[in-house]
Formats: sequence, C-alpha cells, structure tokens
Amino acid sequence: MPPCTTEYRVIYSDCDPFDVVYYGRYLDFFERGRTELFRTLGLSYKEIFEGGIALPVTDTRCKYHKSARYDDLLLIESAVGYLKKASIRFEHRIYHKETDTLLAEGYTVHAFVDYDRKIVRVPDEVAVKIADFKESQGLS
Amino acid sequence: MPPCTTEYRVIYSDCDPFDVVYYGRYLDFFERGRTELFRTLGLSYKEIFEGGIALPVTDTRCKYHKSARYDDLLLIESAVGYLKKASIRFEHRIYHKETDTLLAEGYTVHAFVDYDRKIVRVPDEVAVKIADFKESQGLS
Amino acid sequence: MPPCTTEYRVIYSDCDPFDVVYYGRYLDFFERGRTELFRTLGLSYKEIFEGGIALPVTDTRCKYHKSARYDDLLLIESAVGYLKKASIRFEHRIYHKETDTLLAEGYTVHAFVDYDRKIVRVPDEVAVKIADFKESQGLS
Amino acid sequence: MPPCTTEYRVIYSDCDPFDVVYYGRYLDFFERGRTELFRTLGLSYKEIFEGGIALPVTDTRCKYHKSARYDDLLLIESAVGYLKKASIRFEHRIYHKETDTLLAEGYTVHAFVDYDRKIVRVPDEVAVKIADFKESQGLS
Repeated sequence: MPPCTTEYRVIYSDCDPFDVVYYGRYLDFFERGRTELFRTLGLSYKEIFEGGIALPVTDTRCKYHKSARYDDLLLIESAVGYLKKASIRFEHRIYHKETDTLLAEGYTVHAFVDYDRKIVRVPDEVAVKIADFKESQGLS
Repeated sequence: MPPCTTEYRVIYSDCDPFDVVYYGRYLDFFERGRTELFRTLGLSYKEIFEGGIALPVTDTRCKYHKSARYDDLLLIESAVGYLKKASIRFEHRIYHKETDTLLAEGYTVHAFVDYDRKIVRVPDEVAVKIADFKESQGLS
Repeated sequence: MPPCTTEYRVIYSDCDPFDVVYYGRYLDFFERGRTELFRTLGLSYKEIFEGGIALPVTDTRCKYHKSARYDDLLLIESAVGYLKKASIRFEHRIYHKETDTLLAEGYTVHAFVDYDRKIVRVPDEVAVKIADFKESQGLS
Repeated sequence: MPPCTTEYRVIYSDCDPFDVVYYGRYLDFFERGRTELFRTLGLSYKEIFEGGIALPVTDTRCKYHKSARYDDLLLIESAVGYLKKASIRFEHRIYHKETDTLLAEGYTVHAFVDYDRKIVRVPDEVAVKIADFKESQGLS
C-alpha cells in the first residue's frame, strides 16, 4: 500500500534547548499523518467518532535516526500496517524533505472502542474503504 | 484576596532552542494556577462543567520580564481579579521560586457559557464560594 | 501593509476536552504566522539569531471570538504592527478558512536582544527589508 | 533497583477531545520521571550537558492500559533499565495515584553524544553514581 504523505514546517514551539525537535512531538506528527491517510481513504476520524467509535492508541514506538531542526520542512509518510478484527496499526516515517533523509520511524496501534471504552469490531466502513483502496492500487 | 500558589518544575519539553521556557507555555502555567485556586475555594472545573457550564477564555495577556529556564522550580500565583455577571477574571504571576524573582504576569478572562456556547449568568455556587472566601479573609 | 497568510490544520493534540483548540495553542499559531511573514520579507529568524540577535516576546495578548475545532483548516494572518528602535510588534489574526470567520486576534511584542539578553537596536537588515516591502506595496 | 517516583497533576492542556490525556503527553511524563530519577542519583542533565554530553532519545515505546483524565494526580515511576557503554535505558510506569492503577508503561533509550552528535562513552560520573546507588540498595 503506497503511503500517504503530508508536510509539516517545524516551529520553535516544537524544539528543545538542544536545538532539535523534542522527541515527544513526533507523536503529533504521527497523528497528523494518519489523519491525512484517513482523508485519502475517504474516512474521517470525526465521522467515525460521531458514529460511536473511538480509536485510542494502545501501543506506540518511535526510533530516532537523525534530528529535525527549527524551520525544517518535514515529510510525514503514513500507511496502514495491518487491520485486524478490533485494531489497526499505522506505520509512520518522518523525512527531512529537502534532503530526503529518514529522521524517525515508528508505529501506532489503535483499538476500536465504543463510548464506554469497550472493544468493538472494526466498523464495516473502515474495512471496506481500506480494501477498496488496496484494490485500486492493484494490491490484494 | 490572598493569591493561591502552586509549584511547577520546568522540563525540556517546555523549553525552546533559546534555552528558555517557550512563551506559549505560560498559558499552561496560568491554567494550572487557576485550577488550584478553584480547588482552594472549594470549587472544581470538572463539577462546574458537569453542571452544564464551561468557562472558555475570551481574553488573555502575558507580559514577560525574565526568562524561566530548564529545571527551574516555578511558583504560580493566582487570584480572582473580578467576578462579573457572566464573566470572571484571574490574575496570574509566575515567580522563580528560589530567587523569588517575578518572571511573568498576566490575566485570563473567562465567560460563563452553557453547552451551546450561549452566555449564562455566573453559577450561584461560584459566586457564593468566592464571597465566602473573601469574608473568611476579612475582605469585603 | 498587506498581511502574510499561512495555513494550519488542527489536530487532536491541539484540542482540549471541550472539543475546541486549547487557548494556549494560539500562541503557536502566532509564531507560525510571524515566521512565514519574515520569510515573505526575505528575513529568517535563524539567520538573525546566528547573527547574534534574538527576539524574545515581551508582551502578548489574544482575544478569542469563536472556537477552532478538530480538523479545521485555519488561516493565520500576520503583519508588522510597528518597528521601533529596539522592538517590533506583530499583529495576528486567526480565521476559519472555509467560512472566513475571524476566530481570534492578538499581538506579540518582541525585544531585540544580544546573547546576554541585553537590549540592542533593531538590526539594519530587518529595518531595510521591512521598509523595502512597504515601498514595494506603495506604502510609505 | 527501586524506582524513583514523582507526581504530576493533569491539566486541560494535556487532554484531548476524548476527555483523556493525549497519547503524546506521556513522553513528557517519561522525561519528568527520568529527570527526578537523575536528581535522586545525584546527577543533573544540565551539568552533564554543560560537561559536553547530551543524551538524545534513540528509541521509545509506550503501551497504554487505561486512560488518564483531567485533574488526575499521576504517579510517575522511573528506573534505570540498563547502562551500556554508550547508551542508557530508562523504564517508566505511569499510575493513577489515588487508585494505584497502572495506566501506561514504556521505556526510553538514550545515546551519549558530544556536541557534534558523535557517540561517546558513558561519562564516569554517571556510571559511578548509578553503581553507588545500586550498592546502597544492596543490589550488585
């Protein structure tokens, strides 16, 4: 599945005294990436939530290779890693756009839950949209 | 009215590449201070909200005198500036605790609104608790 | 002087439990706006800083008219309010792009200081670039 | 090695529209915890950095079990997982203090690098202080 990409410009608010982007801010970039991925798939977090389902993160990991710095233009690459009965995994990669350097990579795993935080099956709409997209890309 | 004080330890996440606390983070300190002030008054944001009333900020200002730095222990001082029919103003001062230096000062004005964001009168409980506290302090 | 505009997409990380953008996040939007304004003027915070000058915020104010919400596309409008001997003021307005609604407005005042945090005169380059831009726009 | 604990009170700024602490904020809690752990060991990030060494995070993971909510008092538990020639791993656990419920757990791995971001050996002072502490606790 080809990843969805979105851009982000680093501001001082993202950086720490070591003159690099604070490590926690990458989880914001991951969120930004998967939101745009959902949009590409024709899905919307907001609509899914209004339909009664939330997708809290249950597990995340990030490995840092190079630092991002103030005013860098980042490329955020996001893809669906897997879709299971009641969970979804997104893969994220953060690049320095100008030099095409991989800065960090990681994943987020999300459960599908109802408003009482009970695990539920993945909504049909999500499964169908992801399957459709894969088919449109010539992937099984 | 004597101000309520609370402490906060600065971490790297709060600081920017100039090795000082990012200017926007002071609004977090203001929030932290007024939450503790409410607790001192016997009030709770959470309970007020569960009662149907929110207090969105309509106006804020912050003047910065000295920089806060990594690992500084801050003293956040908060007081009620005024309570009007449908709004409340808090005064905030941020000190460097060890040296008792004033770092920044400002205010936040909040409207009382219902869940539809319509302006409502200040809840009786809030008015009473603030009046009680002033009386207990020998203030009119 | 015509304002510089830049866009920003709201993510969950920006929002609070009232389902709106947290009030402190607007100071991040202000920073994002003035960085792009500087870029438009041919100036760079990074280069000014490497030249020995920083621009800490000494005063900021923000008035909030309407709430920004998750996934909103914001338009950040920034302009130079004034340039004095040792300080600069930026004016900021945040709009909801789709509906062209003004959400918030405010300013930031910055001092020009050297690495020892001593006040210095505005660098010639900054004064010249701002004057050039005004002239190019037919403003005195 | 007995973990170091520190407390943190959740504010609205930490929470998202699902009324829980945003997943990225836990990395701030991890930082807060390891800073206090270093203080307990008689070490200081600031002094290590002034001595020419930084400890950028190279890998982090966080698993989320239960949500933290607004106004919750959290207990942040931090311990040294391992100390290798040029890296250190911290283990972090976040508890809801009142109910003693484990909310999240994870780790951060840090490299020791000089100002040019070149890998260096762990400073003697760090190795000694950690060994001393283990000995004082009756650990080998």
